[in-house]
Amino acid sequence: MSDILEQLAQVLEARKEADPETSYVASLHQKGLNKILEKVGEECTETLLAAKDAEHSGETRDVIYETADLWFHSMVMLSRLGLGPKEVLDELASRFDLSGIEEKASRGQ
Amino acid sequence: MSDILEQLAQVLEARKEADPETSYVASLHQKGLNKILEKVGEECTETLLAAKDAEHSGETRDVIYETADLWFHSMVMLSRLGLGPKEVLDELASRFDLSGIEEKASRGQ
Amino acid sequence: MSDILEQLAQVLEARKEADPETSYVASLHQKGLNKILEKVGEECTETLLAAKDAEHSGETRDVIYETADLWFHSMVMLSRLGLGPKEVLDELASRFDLSGIEEKASRGQ
Amino acid sequence: MSDILEQLAQVLEARKEADPETSYVASLHQKGLNKILEKVGEECTETLLAAKDAEHSGETRDVIYETADLWFHSMVMLSRLGLGPKEVLDELASRFDLSGIEEKASRGQ
Repeated sequence: MSDILEQLAQVLEARKEADPETSYVASLHQKGLNKILEKVGEECTETLLAAKDAEHSGETRDVIYETADLWFHSMVMLSRLGLGPKEVLDELASRFDLSGIEEKASRGQ
Repeated sequence: MSDILEQLAQVLEARKEADPETSYVASLHQKGLNKILEKVGEECTETLLAAKDAEHSGETRDVIYETADLWFHSMVMLSRLGLGPKEVLDELASRFDLSGIEEKASRGQ
Repeated sequence: MSDILEQLAQVLEARKEADPETSYVASLHQKGLNKILEKVGEECTETLLAAKDAEHSGETRDVIYETADLWFHSMVMLSRLGLGPKEVLDELASRFDLSGIEEKASRGQ
Repeated sequence: MSDILEQLAQVLEARKEADPETSYVASLHQKGLNKILEKVGEECTETLLAAKDAEHSGETRDVIYETADLWFHSMVMLSRLGLGPKEVLDELASRFDLSGIEEKASRGQ
């Protein structure tokens, strides 16, 4: 699953300059940062509701779908601000000393 | 940056059973799904506020930090529900035909 | 401004049974609790964004508008669950010892 | 229930200048607008979770409590921005033609 976020970040960069008529990402950028943040908030709410429904039904399909929407729109936000998933993952890695683990794993291969 | 989410998912699984006195992740699980979802919502709000501040200040440090918090807590939620980042990234890959790109890349190596 | 919430609660009760084709409130009820909660979450996000914009622009029109949307949709939620603004205001009054003040005012009339 | 929001608005104005050591409202103002908005977001999430729990349990006590928290913190936000519940209720009244209903009701008394 490794490079999916990095690939997605490249897609998002490319679509920044696409035609807002045909590209959803371009249409979000045209509408501006608030619209992008509204979508992040919306997808967060939908994720919470899907998780509560999964708690009772055991059906997790919507949780996956809504979390994908949440991560996607938070990546559009990052892209809007000149950032990408690398910065976020580096932050997570440094908190959990994961880059170290990763380096060791690479050396082991 | 590739396998950081996968490594983090392993850390989260391991900490599920840790001592809630010493592990933040274990303490979230002990408090239950609602507590985990409250944290997802909180970090989403903090991400939005950091993005609005970045819009004016140009300073993006907090956006990275808060987005890391948001992704982290959404991964705790996934783990709580028996899911992991793989399912979410697979969903994103299928939407953007990224698995194809990834497969091709692997074949090329 | 006194009885506006009470009047609005009556309107919301009446529209529960209206035609979803012509009544927005009825259409929300038809779609169910999750749709109503999604709207509460959406309007909360829009309120936060409007407040951040007001912080910089000094223009508060959108804050009023979005807070009205937030309160409105939280009242639809209350109505959905068989509750109304009275229960919420009673809770606030008891926290701030306001019912006492109100009772005194009533006695004075 | 009539004037509870107006009374609460007066309490909130008075506490703006109180000692942050002893007044929760003053402590929120000291921490600034972002802290107040974080609380609005938090209480919104808790309201949604309480509503989902009420859907299954039929127990609505937490919904009332969390909605009171949500309205309370949104009133602190309004106060922070020089606004009050009157502006929000006027907006709701104008949307639903409630001021007219209210006037008529007053005339009828």
